[in-house]
Amino acid sequence: MYSLSELQKSVANYMDNLNVDGTPHSLYEPIAYSLSAGGKRLRPMLTVLACNIFSDNALSALPAAAALEVFHTFTLLHDDVMDNATVRRGKPSVYGKWGTNAALLSGDAMMIYSYKLLQQTPVEYLPAVLGCFNYTAMTVCEGQQVDMEFESRTDVTMEEYMAMIDKKTAALLAGATMIGAIQGGADTQSRQHLFTFATYLGLAFQLQDDLLDAYGTEASLGKPIGGDIVEGKKSFLILTALSKADATTRKTLSQLLENKEIAEDEKIARVLDIYNQLGVKEIAEAEINLHFSKAMDALDSLEVAPERVEPLRFLAQSLLGRNK
Amino acid sequence: MYSLSELQKSVANYMDNLNVDGTPHSLYEPIAYSLSAGGKRLRPMLTVLACNIFSDNALSALPAAAALEVFHTFTLLHDDVMDNATVRRGKPSVYGKWGTNAALLSGDAMMIYSYKLLQQTPVEYLPAVLGCFNYTAMTVCEGQQVDMEFESRTDVTMEEYMAMIDKKTAALLAGATMIGAIQGGADTQSRQHLFTFATYLGLAFQLQDDLLDAYGTEASLGKPIGGDIVEGKKSFLILTALSKADATTRKTLSQLLENKEIAEDEKIARVLDIYNQLGVKEIAEAEINLHFSKAMDALDSLEVAPERVEPLRFLAQSLLGRNK
Repeated sequence: MYSLSELQKSVANYMDNLNVDGTPHSLYEPIAYSLSAGGKRLRPMLTVLACNIFSDNALSALPAAAALEVFHTFTLLHDDVMDNATVRRGKPSVYGKWGTNAALLSGDAMMIYSYKLLQQTPVEYLPAVLGCFNYTAMTVCEGQQVDMEFESRTDVTMEEYMAMIDKKTAALLAGATMIGAIQGGADTQSRQHLFTFATYLGLAFQLQDDLLDAYGTEASLGKPIGGDIVEGKKSFLILTALSKADATTRKTLSQLLENKEIAEDEKIARVLDIYNQLGVKEIAEAEINLHFSKAMDALDSLEVAPERVEPLRFLAQSLLGRNK
Repeated sequence: MYSLSELQKSVANYMDNLNVDGTPHSLYEPIAYSLSAGGKRLRPMLTVLACNIFSDNALSALPAAAALEVFHTFTLLHDDVMDNATVRRGKPSVYGKWGTNAALLSGDAMMIYSYKLLQQTPVEYLPAVLGCFNYTAMTVCEGQQVDMEFESRTDVTMEEYMAMIDKKTAALLAGATMIGAIQGGADTQSRQHLFTFATYLGLAFQLQDDLLDAYGTEASLGKPIGGDIVEGKKSFLILTALSKADATTRKTLSQLLENKEIAEDEKIARVLDIYNQLGVKEIAEAEINLHFSKAMDALDSLEVAPERVEPLRFLAQSLLGRNK
């Protein structure tokens, strides 16, 4: 069994040493560029940490772990085309730097590259891992499609929103964890508990992302506060405010979100005022707590020595800022 | 062993009965639409015909065969975005009908769907089939990237052109054939012969496509004659003409290809005149014959009962119009 920091080093090292090149170089350059942006490598960490619970050979899951990170980064390339987003993590996106065609085709190559990494999965686990990966990947596409369709709708319900983030965000965390469990040789019930854990963790993680957009700091967020408000994006906060507000406030809020004349700063300030009046922050925090505690309950249901679960638990707590 | 027509029916039936649907339906609709366009199903036919040489269970290769057709169709969806092409096989393309984002995201889902079909490969062949599929898919992307870069270049050589179509077109035919051979249990040498066969067949097929663009009929082509000339696309014919022409004719031809003022009909007629003066048609025919005969030589090198190869040979001959 490896410690959390050992696995973090192994994942970082593995990702840094991926050999992404070929002919023509121009196809591979955007792939290497986007993978080098780093980040917390959450998805591959979930894979190796889940494997680590059941096996002392968690490093055997590194190629599949990397496949999940490469797939995740591929989705960002194509999402940026669809969202017309020229900046990603404070740097020009592939779309911004090289344009639509490069983001499209290098994105395609990147998805194929994720499957090339999966090839290295030990053959006894390959059918199950490939099946889980495909299911997960398709679910993420479904989530992205639903999210895109939300943009032109004004009647999105909270239930629909939660179903969307379940597919777009939580499914990939669940798939990453599940694939690690499979390669660790976990039994069906343990896999199911870990799937439940990662799904709730993913939901809590996305809701926290929504919360930080309004109540975080620009430093911690890596981008200006209030982006969701400016874009009129359906988020947990906006949907909560719309559902909690009385008719007058709801009308004010809707008009404010659709108003493109008003200065961004003022728009953000006025929406935050409404959030504060309605207690939206507290509602979001309670919802995050609820999902996080369900995630922890699922971890507690695993029938393994508690210390084997500790590194994964610690990572989950860190992700939600709960291990101070 | 199955006859050619039995396998054609099985492939058509399998493709017609793919269950491509899910939630949201809007993600899957463009996939079903583009797969229903039909076509000759060349790639899946190569897979089952190659399998049929070595095995009496060629139908076991149907899911992988379908995966290759789905992958091929996926590349068309994304190519149409890159080429801004709103029509495909005489019908609106997915890009033309639903726009960039749908072509992009449904294309992604389609690639994932091809891997879902691969999941059904018998486990003893799965690692080799997945490896070959990934290699093939990546090669096709490399070919598309090179092709895109040709658009802005005026110094493309014939050698570069042949290397491009080897990747963009021939590689997928070779991969489809190889995957069938693997699932038939072919030995390494037989796989290599079939890879060589399909590569030369693919080159001959693409050169014939280039030839028909200038010397075919609109009915057989499914689109107006002279498209490559109008677009100034680097094709075997244009590159041959540029290399065979004297300095004066080369200058005339280059200016003609870049001329956007001249009527399309006149442009096509004048370029065809130059082709005819230079004997470009005969050069192309000789080159097609050469590649086709190399393909046939590779088939003849297979150490199997000749009748097992007949259905594949017949298909190859039909493809190049040689079995009258």
